[in-house]
This record gives sequence, structure tokens and C-alpha cells, in this order.
Amino acid sequence: MSHINTAPQHLAPGTAMDTAGGEVTCVDFWANGFGMRARIALRELGVAFRYVEEDLRSGDRSELVRRMNPVHRSIPILIHGGRPVCGSVNILEYVDETWGNDGGARLLPRDPLQRAHARFWADFVDQKVFSTQTRFLKSKGAAEKEAAKEELLDQLRRLEEVLGDKTFFAGDEFGFLDAVLIPFSSMFHGYEQHGGFSLENECPSLMRWVRRCKERDSVKSVLPDEDEMYELHKKWYGITE
Amino acid sequence: MSHINTAPQHLAPGTAMDTAGGEVTCVDFWANGFGMRARIALRELGVAFRYVEEDLRSGDRSELVRRMNPVHRSIPILIHGGRPVCGSVNILEYVDETWGNDGGARLLPRDPLQRAHARFWADFVDQKVFSTQTRFLKSKGAAEKEAAKEELLDQLRRLEEVLGDKTFFAGDEFGFLDAVLIPFSSMFHGYEQHGGFSLENECPSLMRWVRRCKERDSVKSVLPDEDEMYELHKKWYGITE
Repeated sequence: MSHINTAPQHLAPGTAMDTAGGEVTCVDFWANGFGMRARIALRELGVAFRYVEEDLRSGDRSELVRRMNPVHRSIPILIHGGRPVCGSVNILEYVDETWGNDGGARLLPRDPLQRAHARFWADFVDQKVFSTQTRFLKSKGAAEKEAAKEELLDQLRRLEEVLGDKTFFAGDEFGFLDAVLIPFSSMFHGYEQHGGFSLENECPSLMRWVRRCKERDSVKSVLPDEDEMYELHKKWYGITE
Repeated sequence: MSHINTAPQHLAPGTAMDTAGGEVTCVDFWANGFGMRARIALRELGVAFRYVEEDLRSGDRSELVRRMNPVHRSIPILIHGGRPVCGSVNILEYVDETWGNDGGARLLPRDPLQRAHARFWADFVDQKVFSTQTRFLKSKGAAEKEAAKEELLDQLRRLEEVLGDKTFFAGDEFGFLDAVLIPFSSMFHGYEQHGGFSLENECPSLMRWVRRCKERDSVKSVLPDEDEMYELHKKWYGITE
């Protein structure tokens, strides 16, 4: 059963609630890293939205999810004026195109090559980092776990290189790739517990970026408690240590 | 070894070769359905480009591919003014943002919700249809093959529903989702041979859409011979019948 929170979760001055096509709802689960992206993006762009919790710990999907995303029955789903947008990166593009402002807050840069760069690394996070994280957490035996750990650290170090000495991934402003990656940081404590390493030692500048992101209201209001995240994933993946 | 064809493959009047950042190169393999998307999109938007063939039948990637896409070493790669854009959907977005014209040819519609719709179904093609195609072609045993065949046909029928009675996926104009899906039609003959069914019977209106697409210069100059495609895939997947 999903818990429907009928109170708008975020009401910023000058929201687009009425000017861009009606009420905005985000259907998500508190521990869903993909959905956190959507909620962070909405807050970054000052969009008022209603939050509807869909508990992924239940095997059944709610009638709302089955109706709004009949193809995948997955979340997050953004519902704008009654019409659904599904898939976290797709939602970020939609949020940016609908509420992004050339003169103000926006997620993707204007330059097509920089946009392509951001989308390339977002895809890297989805196709590589997420699957490696899953393999690392589900690994059986020391050798498999060690191999997945090294691969995960290599991927995080590669992202650290992409960040370089910039404040955020696209420069001075928090944007698309920051919103894509920062939810994974809520599992970093879990990585450390599970793998017996320190990310401060392995990726110090990426960790400084995490702290900068967490200073933002959008991020700190969305990212869950790291211990709760790891406890949930331990149950999901049958981690016993 | 890749064959470098130094002659521009397509020179349309009023190309953007000089006005939007320098020479355009597309690195691809003739039978790569993902890369066909990029080549069709470039032709649709009248962009002159040099085609560099990377033979995927060789296990080694060329120095150009290793340098331009060190992360994945995959194709297609679009190189514009010396700078690479990797990943077929990413390339379509880039081509549209760089050479799409609000008053003329463009790939994605203007409306954010319609754009989200197109991206959603593009992701469906990549995440669902492609993996089902692979499973179908690699299937061992009658039951596994039959199950994969039914799933593939269900997915094609679902896309047929999305098309509806429109000329192209977004309406009257050939666009993004057409470019994403039409390369798969070069395997349709292979599906029929492998599965013993007729797509004219199973998805008649989707097949009419295929014929409409194939009337376009962009599509007919890029799609390979269907028999050659199936022969290649038979070798790849060890199909012996």
C-alpha cells in the first residue's frame, strides 16, 4: 500500500504550478536512488510538487503506478497535469525543459557538446556504476567481492577525474550530472561498511563534492539516512555480516 | 583494421560543415543498428559527414575508437570538430541540438511532454526490444525460442500501438523515434526466417510504417541488405538452421 501524502512537499516562491500545465506529483520511494534525482531536480528548479510514497518493499505496485506506468510499473513517475513522465533521466530532461530558465536555474548546460558530455556520464552511472554496485553488494565469496569492489572504486575514481577541480560537474553551478550521481552517495557509507575501505582515502575530491552537494537544501532534504539505506540494502541483498 | 573512406558520404546543399564547428565524422560499422540511427539522423538534417568504417567482426578496436571512446570502446562515435559524442541516442540529441531547425527539419518535437514520450519509447527499444531480439536469436531449444519470439512480437505490437494511425511516430514528420527504431527493421527478415512467422500478418501497420520510412533517401541509403544482416547475425549467434 502506498502512503499518499497530500501536503505539497515543497512550496517555493514563484513556482510554476499554475503557469506550466497544472499540478505536479512525484511518485517515489524514500530509498530509491533514481527517484531522488527527480525530487532533487524539482527542488533545485523551485517546482512545487506533491509527493506520493510507493513502498518498494511491497511486491505489489499501487493502482496509481500500474495506471501511470503500465509498461514498466516502475518509479519514479512525475505526473504533470495528469500526464506521466517515467524514468529518472527522462524526468530530469522534462523538468529542465519545462521549468529550466535560461537566465536562472537550469540542469543541463546550453552548449550541445557539454550536454552530450553530461548525458554520456549519466549513462555511465546508470549502465556501469549501478550494476557494479549491485554486483558488489550481492557478491558471494571474497574473490568476487574484491573484484567488484575494485571495479566500483575504479568507476568512482573515473567520475572523480571527470569532476576534476570544478565545484560541480558542469562548473560552478549544480546541474544534471550532479543530480544523477549524488543519490548514490547515500550508499557510500554502505560501500565502506561492506568493503572495508575509506572513500575519504580512495576518492577525497569526490567526497568533497558530496559535502558541497549536501550543503544544498534540495539535496539534504531528499537524501535519506545512510545507516537506514545500508540496513535496507542488507535486507534486499541478503547481506549478513 | 578499419577502412577509412576519405570521401564525404553525403553532401547536401546548405550543410552545417563550416557553420557549426568543423568537420563531421561518423565512426560506425555497416551492420550496427545503433550506428544506423546516427547516420540516418545526419542525413535527415542535411549534415555532410565523413564515414569511417570500424569492422566489429574484428575483436580489436582501432586506435581512433580507443582514443575517441576510451570508456566503452564502442561505436557509433560522432566526431565534430575533433571532439567525440558517443552513444546512439546521445548522438541523436546532439545532432538535433546542433543542426535541428525550429522552422525546418528536426528530430524531437518541441513540446516537452512529446519529447519525454519519444525518449521513453526509445529507451523501451534499447532496454527491451534489443535484449529480447538477442535472446530470441541466441535461444537454445524450442521452448526458449518460442517464449522469446512471443515476447518480441508483443513488444513490436506495443510499438505498433504507439504508432497508431500516424504516418510517423511523432505525427506527419519523420523524427527521433523513427530514427531509433527503423534500423531494427533490417533484422525483420531475419526474425521471420528464424521464427517462422510473417510480420505482415503479425504487425501489418508497423510494416506499412517500415515501407514509408524506406521511401526516404536517408533510410534507404543507410539500411543494409536484409539477407546480409541475417547471415552476419547467424554467424554471430551461432545459428545453424
